[in-house]
Amino acid sequence: MKFARFAKDSEVFYGVITNGIIKVIKGDMFGEWENTDQLFSANEVKYLAPLEPNQIIGIGVNYVGKVEDLPTTLPEVPVFFFKPLTTIIGPEEEIVIPAAIDHVKFESELAIIIGKNAKNVAEEDVLDYVFGYTIGNDVTAPQYFSEDGTRTIGKSFDTFTPLGPFIETKLDPFNVKIEARVNNVEMQNSATELMIVPIRKMISYLSSVMTLKKGDVILTGTPLGAEFVGAGDIIECEIKEIGTLRNTFVSAKETIEVN
Amino acid sequence: MKFARFAKDSEVFYGVITNGIIKVIKGDMFGEWENTDQLFSANEVKYLAPLEPNQIIGIGVNYVGKVEDLPTTLPEVPVFFFKPLTTIIGPEEEIVIPAAIDHVKFESELAIIIGKNAKNVAEEDVLDYVFGYTIGNDVTAPQYFSEDGTRTIGKSFDTFTPLGPFIETKLDPFNVKIEARVNNVEMQNSATELMIVPIRKMISYLSSVMTLKKGDVILTGTPLGAEFVGAGDIIECEIKEIGTLRNTFVSAKETIEVN
Repeated sequence: MKFARFAKDSEVFYGVITNGIIKVIKGDMFGEWENTDQLFSANEVKYLAPLEPNQIIGIGVNYVGKVEDLPTTLPEVPVFFFKPLTTIIGPEEEIVIPAAIDHVKFESELAIIIGKNAKNVAEEDVLDYVFGYTIGNDVTAPQYFSEDGTRTIGKSFDTFTPLGPFIETKLDPFNVKIEARVNNVEMQNSATELMIVPIRKMISYLSSVMTLKKGDVILTGTPLGAEFVGAGDIIECEIKEIGTLRNTFVSAKETIEVN
Repeated sequence: MKFARFAKDSEVFYGVITNGIIKVIKGDMFGEWENTDQLFSANEVKYLAPLEPNQIIGIGVNYVGKVEDLPTTLPEVPVFFFKPLTTIIGPEEEIVIPAAIDHVKFESELAIIIGKNAKNVAEEDVLDYVFGYTIGNDVTAPQYFSEDGTRTIGKSFDTFTPLGPFIETKLDPFNVKIEARVNNVEMQNSATELMIVPIRKMISYLSSVMTLKKGDVILTGTPLGAEFVGAGDIIECEIKEIGTLRNTFVSAKETIEVN
């Protein structure tokens, strides 16, 4: 099932997309909801980030180039980071490059959406706690990593986490490809089997530390090929079974910021 | 003014404390609220974390031992980290040490509560965006720092951020002392003038990266003297003008965790 969050005439709706038609739903997408009679054509609305996440968790460098390069032992404590909710934007919105720099990196990623409280979940049970999947672009300004390597600031600028366009609940996360194109040129295209810390281990591990909550978004890492881009560049992150998340980079130098 | 959030007969209230009496308020503590006729004695209620934060931001090592040790140049990108909201507990609640380890560190800190959206705020205007101050204990398990030094997991275990007991809105943050006692023995006692990245610079810098929001909590770093403690130890974090935040450490080995 494909969920969308979208705006039409400045009202915000949640809906289910089938064959180019969005049926508006009422209630809690994660739990009790029902169909309404309201329908839209899928191409007449403005898509928003497909959920308002509870929090965003990302994982550091998590892909190899080919299966043979997968390490035999995993890091004892994988590198995770949080991104603030103020980084979230939707499809077609502008990613703002901070005024002091000219380039940032895109990172196309499979984003896992947690559906209910998860604490100490075994690897084999992990998918029972997943609501669905969307695409995340974990935009990063490594120029703002701290001297000791801490990523926080470089990941936290407003607009640095485009999400969308849809949430697909029926997806085999072990069998999809994560793609990215810059100005129509392919930059990333890797299967999720190239993840160093695989999905089951990642969620099980996180749930051994913290109670994961409904609406938590886990950015599962980006394949090789993430590069620096600049103002005017167009990034398309794609997972065929979900859709294409398209955004344009602009420079903060050209935008007016107000308190 | 001293705000409290508390429970009485399993109902949750916000209130204002004056001379041992809590007057219950209705509405948004950060904005429009009014007094009610409901009164409680300050010692007949169970205090909770004094707010439900929007997010928690912490700063790495941020104190020197004496003013002469303050560095002449500040780090270009200070080390910040986020802690998940699932780490929050209130006064008198138990801090759970993860089952695989025996000791964690306490860190007594001045916690700043943002009152309204703050973006690109100049250092001299920072306090206009502060709602008030509470005490935070930034509990940390450095055994769970990643090999590259990333702090995320070691800061993110459930119960790792006691907050409270009150929010003081009238406080001179440049002129308070941050204290900590373990089993009644003083471990920390430093004035905020010993901060490496001072408050005005910290908030101004963060606001240049991300839009700070109402309910954001900034843990401003801990003085020298944070040490390892174990199950059974009692930690009291104190800022005299706010109160004392007291918690007991327990081991996860002795608690039953359920999904």
